[in-house]
Amino acid sequence: MTPLPPGSTIGIVGGGQLGRMLAMAAARLGYRTIILEPQPDCPALQVATRQIEAAYDDEAGLDELAAACAVVTYEFENVPVVVAARLGRSVAVFPPPKALEIAQDRVVEKTFLNSIGVETARFMAIDTLAGLGDALASFGGVGLLKTRRLGYDGKGQAPIRAPEAAETAFHGLGGRDLILEALVPFEREISVVAARGRDGRLAAFDPAENVHRDGILRSSSVPARIAAETAAAARAAAFQILEALDYVGVIGVELFVLADGSLLANEIAPRVHNSGHWTEAACAVSQFEQHIRAVAGLPLGDPAHHADCVMENLIGADIGRLAALAAEAGVFIHHYGKTETRPGRKMGHFTRLRPLQAPSP
Amino acid sequence: MTPLPPGSTIGIVGGGQLGRMLAMAAARLGYRTIILEPQPDCPALQVATRQIEAAYDDEAGLDELAAACAVVTYEFENVPVVVAARLGRSVAVFPPPKALEIAQDRVVEKTFLNSIGVETARFMAIDTLAGLGDALASFGGVGLLKTRRLGYDGKGQAPIRAPEAAETAFHGLGGRDLILEALVPFEREISVVAARGRDGRLAAFDPAENVHRDGILRSSSVPARIAAETAAAARAAAFQILEALDYVGVIGVELFVLADGSLLANEIAPRVHNSGHWTEAACAVSQFEQHIRAVAGLPLGDPAHHADCVMENLIGADIGRLAALAAEAGVFIHHYGKTETRPGRKMGHFTRLRPLQAPSP
Repeated sequence: MTPLPPGSTIGIVGGGQLGRMLAMAAARLGYRTIILEPQPDCPALQVATRQIEAAYDDEAGLDELAAACAVVTYEFENVPVVVAARLGRSVAVFPPPKALEIAQDRVVEKTFLNSIGVETARFMAIDTLAGLGDALASFGGVGLLKTRRLGYDGKGQAPIRAPEAAETAFHGLGGRDLILEALVPFEREISVVAARGRDGRLAAFDPAENVHRDGILRSSSVPARIAAETAAAARAAAFQILEALDYVGVIGVELFVLADGSLLANEIAPRVHNSGHWTEAACAVSQFEQHIRAVAGLPLGDPAHHADCVMENLIGADIGRLAALAAEAGVFIHHYGKTETRPGRKMGHFTRLRPLQAPSP
Repeated sequence: MTPLPPGSTIGIVGGGQLGRMLAMAAARLGYRTIILEPQPDCPALQVATRQIEAAYDDEAGLDELAAACAVVTYEFENVPVVVAARLGRSVAVFPPPKALEIAQDRVVEKTFLNSIGVETARFMAIDTLAGLGDALASFGGVGLLKTRRLGYDGKGQAPIRAPEAAETAFHGLGGRDLILEALVPFEREISVVAARGRDGRLAAFDPAENVHRDGILRSSSVPARIAAETAAAARAAAFQILEALDYVGVIGVELFVLADGSLLANEIAPRVHNSGHWTEAACAVSQFEQHIRAVAGLPLGDPAHHADCVMENLIGADIGRLAALAAEAGVFIHHYGKTETRPGRKMGHFTRLRPLQAPSP
């Protein structure tokens, strides 16, 4: 296909830090960007060409976006599927709305993954307390109870470590549309950020090893401490998902690594992913540029990295560390331009580079 | 000094590609930017917070900029000194206006360089044809005739290879306010992009080896093919200049390397420099971020590079190469978002990375 010519406009639904970094990457490729976002003066606007200040499901706003753009993408997976469908009637929308539909519901997501041969932890859909009791019994009395939809950064989930904790957890999460996942004795968490172009070609950045605290990603390290076969299997799983969805764009796939090196997929994010921010500092083509390349029909970039690294999120008041971090050698810093610091809010990140120990496979 | 807090606004006089790349670097540090530029929809606006659409010497525009910004800088050296002075009455302006004054006049510039012990080619101020004749006689009948002011990208200069060519060159360049420079038998051209912080600290990126054609920079390669002593001398010259000017920000210093490894300074640019664009691809902190750090009072970044590289400008129709370049591994591309392609116009650049052969000294 013919790539989108420079000067074309790319629409981005969502104006947070991911939209911001997508807009910056688009600019470097010569594209303009319009952000659809209800929050005035959003982080992405500061580097985008303009903002349509409207709710994500505002029909007039969506139609204005579709009319002004050559292609539309999104920075978060909770864009209502009807919104993507409405946009899709008059403009190309990537990633495909089907990926949203799957990623928005943990039961649908895991069912899809299993159906294409990507293993996950055992899970059961939960809509009654009795159903939860049965599921817990079959999972050995413990499990992770989550809302099926709209959970992120550790919100909307409760570990159940004993059957008597079930009722509180069940009601605390609303008592319906839940999922119980078996607890997985994982050794580490990794993620693969991969991409598929409009020409069907595939590329994956090296897996990152992730550390979460209170359900929020704290750091991603590359390389992950995993065997080459495990890394290859993680990449292969991401590629299977991309192909099964006829996907275009970047996807984030989170996986658990078990003691024997085998993998269980945890979740997929049909967008650029926090665990891929390191690519901005350590690759010629970042995940943000890779996503823009994919949706614009440009060739995918080489995902090799030129430095090993650790990316750390700056959450809430952590952002105050930035000036001190700026004084360190080999540190790449990124402030999201958010005016209000709140506990748990992702305010920025930094990536500490160190010489490459082994070339990418 | 206390660094400018994130969320502060930095003013940039000039909205071309340098202003654009400065605005993107400022955003990553959490700063907002306002561009003063008469051209509507300028390249920098696409990534800046807003534009004041006014001539560089428009008093109302300047006062608006000064009132809205915590610090003001500029992307080109031909900002009228009175403009910098007017801004300076109500807001901090970096680099210092004195650097503009010196860089705007080739005679003043070379006189300054010689006065601080930085050698240049021999030169003479030329205001009459007779004076040109005398100067040529003392330079062996040949030389490079230039306007003292406002020359760039090879404009405003004429080589004189024989005395009989003098009159045409003299009149062609306006017949006054000229400079004759002795031709220098240089082996190569290099440049040092260096910075001085508000705390007086100094940092220099490794010298780049530059190739010009038709007076326009075509490529910059790092490392330059020069001895370590030559590189050290080039850095030292840049540091001398920064200190003599009590400078804050990034400066570009172009030098000729003679056969014996000695150096003659050619010119200084009190701003980020085209020959430093490679730093965006090969350093944790680019020249653009370094400049913003300096004017914002943040610590200067480590100038080490993590990859060797060659940066090439995409001039005029060359920009059409971008899609093919995007398909190459290890290539970092940058399109300036200019809507109109014109011969000789800098439209973008790319940097081809390759593994580091030797660490930075």
